[in-house]
Amino acid sequence: MAHPATPILDRIAGPADLHALSDAQLALLAKEVRAEVISVVSETGGHLGSSLGVVELAVAIHAVFDTPRDKLIWDVGHQCYPHKILTGRRDRMRSLRQGGGISGFTKRSESEYDPFGAAHSSTSISAALGFAVARDLGMPTGEAIAVIGDGSITAGMAYEAMNNAGDMHKRLFVILNDNDMSIAPPVGAMSRYLNQLNNGAPFAALRAAAEGIEASLPGPLRDGARRARQLITGIPGGGTLFEELGFTYIGPIDGHDMAQVLATLRTARARATGPVMIHALTVKGKGYPPAEHALDKYHGVGRFDVESGTQAKSKSNAPSYTGVFGTALANAAALDTRIVAVTAAMPSGTGVDIMAAKFPARVFDVGIAEQHGVTFAAAMAAAGLRPFVAIYSTFLQRGYDQIVHDVALQGLPVRFAIDRAGLVGQDGATHAGAFDVGFLADLPGMVVMAAGDEADLVHMVATAAAYDDGPIAFRYPRGEGRGVEVPSPGEILPIGKGRVLRQGDDLALLSFGAHLGECLIAADLLEADGISVTVADARFAKPLDTDLITQLVRHHKAVITVEQGSAGGFAAQVLHYLANSGGFDRGAVVRTLTLPDRFIEQASPAAMYLDAGMTAQDIRLLAQTTLQAATA
Amino acid sequence: MAHPATPILDRIAGPADLHALSDAQLALLAKEVRAEVISVVSETGGHLGSSLGVVELAVAIHAVFDTPRDKLIWDVGHQCYPHKILTGRRDRMRSLRQGGGISGFTKRSESEYDPFGAAHSSTSISAALGFAVARDLGMPTGEAIAVIGDGSITAGMAYEAMNNAGDMHKRLFVILNDNDMSIAPPVGAMSRYLNQLNNGAPFAALRAAAEGIEASLPGPLRDGARRARQLITGIPGGGTLFEELGFTYIGPIDGHDMAQVLATLRTARARATGPVMIHALTVKGKGYPPAEHALDKYHGVGRFDVESGTQAKSKSNAPSYTGVFGTALANAAALDTRIVAVTAAMPSGTGVDIMAAKFPARVFDVGIAEQHGVTFAAAMAAAGLRPFVAIYSTFLQRGYDQIVHDVALQGLPVRFAIDRAGLVGQDGATHAGAFDVGFLADLPGMVVMAAGDEADLVHMVATAAAYDDGPIAFRYPRGEGRGVEVPSPGEILPIGKGRVLRQGDDLALLSFGAHLGECLIAADLLEADGISVTVADARFAKPLDTDLITQLVRHHKAVITVEQGSAGGFAAQVLHYLANSGGFDRGAVVRTLTLPDRFIEQASPAAMYLDAGMTAQDIRLLAQTTLQAATA
Repeated sequence: MAHPATPILDRIAGPADLHALSDAQLALLAKEVRAEVISVVSETGGHLGSSLGVVELAVAIHAVFDTPRDKLIWDVGHQCYPHKILTGRRDRMRSLRQGGGISGFTKRSESEYDPFGAAHSSTSISAALGFAVARDLGMPTGEAIAVIGDGSITAGMAYEAMNNAGDMHKRLFVILNDNDMSIAPPVGAMSRYLNQLNNGAPFAALRAAAEGIEASLPGPLRDGARRARQLITGIPGGGTLFEELGFTYIGPIDGHDMAQVLATLRTARARATGPVMIHALTVKGKGYPPAEHALDKYHGVGRFDVESGTQAKSKSNAPSYTGVFGTALANAAALDTRIVAVTAAMPSGTGVDIMAAKFPARVFDVGIAEQHGVTFAAAMAAAGLRPFVAIYSTFLQRGYDQIVHDVALQGLPVRFAIDRAGLVGQDGATHAGAFDVGFLADLPGMVVMAAGDEADLVHMVATAAAYDDGPIAFRYPRGEGRGVEVPSPGEILPIGKGRVLRQGDDLALLSFGAHLGECLIAADLLEADGISVTVADARFAKPLDTDLITQLVRHHKAVITVEQGSAGGFAAQVLHYLANSGGFDRGAVVRTLTLPDRFIEQASPAAMYLDAGMTAQDIRLLAQTTLQAATA
Repeated sequence: MAHPATPILDRIAGPADLHALSDAQLALLAKEVRAEVISVVSETGGHLGSSLGVVELAVAIHAVFDTPRDKLIWDVGHQCYPHKILTGRRDRMRSLRQGGGISGFTKRSESEYDPFGAAHSSTSISAALGFAVARDLGMPTGEAIAVIGDGSITAGMAYEAMNNAGDMHKRLFVILNDNDMSIAPPVGAMSRYLNQLNNGAPFAALRAAAEGIEASLPGPLRDGARRARQLITGIPGGGTLFEELGFTYIGPIDGHDMAQVLATLRTARARATGPVMIHALTVKGKGYPPAEHALDKYHGVGRFDVESGTQAKSKSNAPSYTGVFGTALANAAALDTRIVAVTAAMPSGTGVDIMAAKFPARVFDVGIAEQHGVTFAAAMAAAGLRPFVAIYSTFLQRGYDQIVHDVALQGLPVRFAIDRAGLVGQDGATHAGAFDVGFLADLPGMVVMAAGDEADLVHMVATAAAYDDGPIAFRYPRGEGRGVEVPSPGEILPIGKGRVLRQGDDLALLSFGAHLGECLIAADLLEADGISVTVADARFAKPLDTDLITQLVRHHKAVITVEQGSAGGFAAQVLHYLANSGGFDRGAVVRTLTLPDRFIEQASPAAMYLDAGMTAQDIRLLAQTTLQAATA
C-alpha cells in the first residue's frame, strides 16, 4: 500500500514545531500520525492497538508541554509509536523492533525525548516523582508527566508511587489512559472502580482545577478552561480514590477529543500545585476498525494488510513451548483437582487460558501483581492445593522476595512455570529471561529444572505436579520446540538426574535447557571435524546430577556447560560442586557458555544468540579451543 | 521481678479454652496476657510495643474464631507474642528470639496456629486470600483472618491483594491494626487518609454489616450487633477507599475495648459474604506507660526493668556499621549537594537519619515501598542527582525487578547501601542477607563491593558517591565493626581492585566482606599450626580483581574464598573467571566457604555463623583439609 498523505506531519521535525500549530491543525496532525502508525505497523508488526489509543494524547502532550526539558514517561512504553514519530524518529520507524532498528519501547539511549525507558509496567509514576523531586532540588529538568494505563495502575508499585507522590505534594501530572483493556481485559477491584467512575458520568468533571479560574487566565487558557468546565456533570458520591491518595483528580475526559485533551492539559499545567491525575478514556485500536473490533488480537500484531486487516501468518513448524505447557497443565488439572494456576495478567501469553477454558474456577488471574500472586499461591499450597504460578522469567523478578520469604523459607510446594527463559526476540533486553536460574538456585530447598525440548517440558509439568516436598521451578523459552514428539501424559522425572543423549569420547557438552538443540547441532559439526562429542542434558540446576558431572569430567578431555542464561546460574552450581569436591584439584578443563555480561539488544532470537556468541558454530569454536587447551 | 498473677491465663491450654469464657473474663484475660507479655519481654527483649497493641485483638480473635481450623495470619508477625502465649507456647516464651528458642515471628514449623509465617511486611492479605480460595475449592480450612498494621498496608503488595480480594469477593477478614506508628511514624497519603478517617468519627460506623440485622441473630450475637450499632456515628462523605476496592468497611473501632472488638468480630463473622475490613484503632505499647510514652524506642527493646522501664544497655566496643555508614553519608552529603538518600520506612535502622537531621529535604522516606523507592531513585539519578538507596539486603529482594529493569538496564548511577548483609541474629532466617551478591553481580554493568571493615565502608561511601558510570552497590553487616580506625573523609577506591592484608606462602584466604576479621583470626591460628597464610580482601565481587586472583592461585598451594552469603555470589564469580581463563586446566585447589544450602535459624550472629560452619576455627579446619588435598 502507498504511504498515507501526511502534509502537516511532513513539516514536523520535532515537538517544538507543534507549538506553532493551531488546535485545528493539531487535530489534523493526530489523524496523520494515526495513519502513519497504521502504515508503519502494517510493515513491521508491533503494538498497534495501544499506540492507536494514545495518538491524541501524544500530540496534545507534546503541544502543551516543553519536551525534552519536560520529562514525558510512557508507562510500559509499548504505546510509544506516535511519540517516536513526533520526536525525530519517523524516518527510522520502519525498522521497528528489528535488529539494529528502533526499539518497540521507550529507551534512554535512543532519544533525549525518552528520559526514562520502560517495558515492564507500572514504573512511570515513580520515575515522574523522581524527576519532580530532582527539579525541586535544582536539577535542570522541567515538568514530569507519566502516562499510565488502567492495567498498569493496578500494580502495587504504582500504588506505592501514588501514595508517596500524594504525600509529598510534588507538582507532577499522571495521565491515566483508561481503555479498560491491557493485554487481556484488566481484572481487580480497581478496574471495576474505574468502570463505575466512567459509567457515572461519561465525560465529566474538571473538578477543583477548573472551578472559577477562567477570569484569571490569559486568553487561550481561559477558553480551554471554559470548555473544560462545560463538561462538568459531577461525579456522585464523595472524593475519588485518587483524591483520597492526595491527587487532584480531573476527569474522565474523552482522550480522543483533541479540544478536550488540550484544554485539560493546559488548565492542569496552569493551575497544578501538587500531583494531578487526569483520567482520559480511550479506545484501544482507535481509528482502525479491524483493531477496534478485535482488540486483544491487535495488542501485538505481525505484518498485516491495511485494507483488510488480515495479518500475515508466520509459518509454524513445531508447537510452541507455551502451548505445550498450557496443554500439559490442562491435562494434569483434569486428573488432579488440587491443581490450580495463577497468572499475573497473562492468561494467553502463559498458556494457562487452555486450563481456564476447562476449569475456570481453578485459574486465577491476579492482575499485574506478581508479588501478590506468588504469596497467594504459597498460601494455597499451605492449604493443600497444588498451585502452578506461570510467570515469564523477566516478570518473576517482581516476585522475588515473595519467592524467598513466603515460598522457599516455608518450604511450600509452589510450582513455578517460567516461560520466556533466555533471549526473547523483538521485545529485546528488557524482556530477556537471563537471571532466574541464579536467583532461584541460590535458594535452599528450591528445585530448578529447564526443559531441553518440548517433550521434557511435558515431563516437567508432570514432575512438578507430583512434587510436594517443596518449591520447584522449570524454565522454557519463547517460541517453537525442537519438533520432537510430545508425550501425553508426561513421566515423573527422577529429581536431580540428567540424561545423556549422545555418547562420545573427546568432549562433553553439558546442556541445561533449550540450547540442547544447538548442542546437538554443534556435536554434528564437531564430529565432522573428527571430534567425538558427548551431549548431556542436565535437566536440573538444583539438585545437581553430581554423578553425571563427575563422569563427564572424568571421561572427557574437556567439558563445556551451555545454558540460556547469565553467569551465576547453572554453570555456577556446577563450578561450586567441582571446586568443593576437588574436581579441579588435579586439573579439569571446564568452560561455561552463558549469556555474555552485557544486555543483548532486540533482534530475532537467533540473531540475538548470534550476537551473544551462543550459536552452534560458537559452541563448535569454543569446543575446539578448549580441546586445544586441554591437550596443549 | 516476680511473675505477674495470671489466674485465668493459667487455666488456658489453648484457644479452645477461650470459647468457654464470658466477655468479662475475656477482658480480664487480656489484662493478664498484657502483664505476661511485659514480664516475658523484660527478660528476653523483643518487639514489645507492637505486641502490647494487639492484646485485645489476639484474645478476641481466638475467642470468636475457631483456630487452627480458621487461619489467623499476623502481618510481619512481630506482634505475635500475645498470640503465642494463647496458643500453647507460653512456657517457652522466655526463650524468645534465642538460639533454639521461640521465634520472634510467626512460623509454620513452630505451631499449627501459625498457618503462614511472616517477618517481611504486607504479605498477610495475599495469604488470607489463598486460604479462602482453597477453602472454597474444598480444602479442609475455615475462615481466613489477616491482621495488618497501618504501616504494612501502605506497601504495594497489600494493595495488590486488596484489589484482587475485592474483585473475587471471597469471604475473608482483614483487621487493620491502626496505631499510626510502624517502626517509624508511617508516611504517605494512605497514612494521612487513615488519620482523617479517625478524626472524622472516633469510634464509629459499623456500617452495612450491622444494619437492621439484630432481629435475625441468636442471643449473644444480637447483643453484640446492638452494641455495635450503638457505636455508629457515620462517616462524612461517600465510601471509603476500602469500599472502593470492594471491601465491606467497618470502623473505626477501639481496638482496646474488648466489648467493641468482640461485638464487631461476631457481627462480621455472622454476616460477611465477601471481604471485610475491620479498622481497629490501637495504641502501640498500650498498658505499659514507658512504652506508650516512648513508642519507637519500644519497637524492638533489649531486656528492661519493668518498674522503671530502663533498658539494659549492651556494651559497645566499636561503632556499628550502620552508624559508620550514616555518618559517612552525612559527611559526603555536606560536600556534595547532589547526594540524596532514599529509605523504605527505616530511617534510623539504616542510619540515613543522621543525614536527614542535617539535610531533611534530601532524604526521602518512601514508606514500605522498595519497588517504588528503587525506581524513584533511578529517575533522580537520570536527572543528575546522586542517590543512595539504603535498604537491608533482605528487603532489597522486594525491589529486584526495579534494580534490573530501571537501574541496571539503563546504566543509571544509583548507589545501593546494603545493610544487614549476612546473618543478622535474633531476627533469624527471614532477615538474613544471603542472596544479594548473587542477584546483583549477575547483572551487567553493576559494581558490587563489600566492606571488609568499618574503615573500608567509609571508603566505599566515598567511592560510590564519586562513581557516575553506572549502578554501584556495597554491603556490610549488622553490628559492630572490627574496631579499626575510621577515616574521614574516605578515599575513592580503584574500581575492581582488592588488597592484600597479610602475605604468606602456603595458602591464601580470599575474603569478600566482613568475614575478613574471621579470616585474620584463622590466619593466626594457622600460623600457629605452621602454615603460612596470605589474607586478601577482594573488595569487589564485580568487577573482579582478576590479577589478584591469578596471583593468589599461582603462588599458593590452595585458595579459599570466604563470604557472608550464599553460593552463587562472590565465589561463583571467581570460579567462572578461573574456569574460563584456564585457571583450573592444570589444577588449582580452590574451595569456597559460603553460607550452607539451608536456612540458618535465629541465634546470636556468632552462634549462627557457628551453625553455618563459618567460624575462624571452621576456616582453619577447611584450610588444613584443603592443603592436604593439595599436597596429597
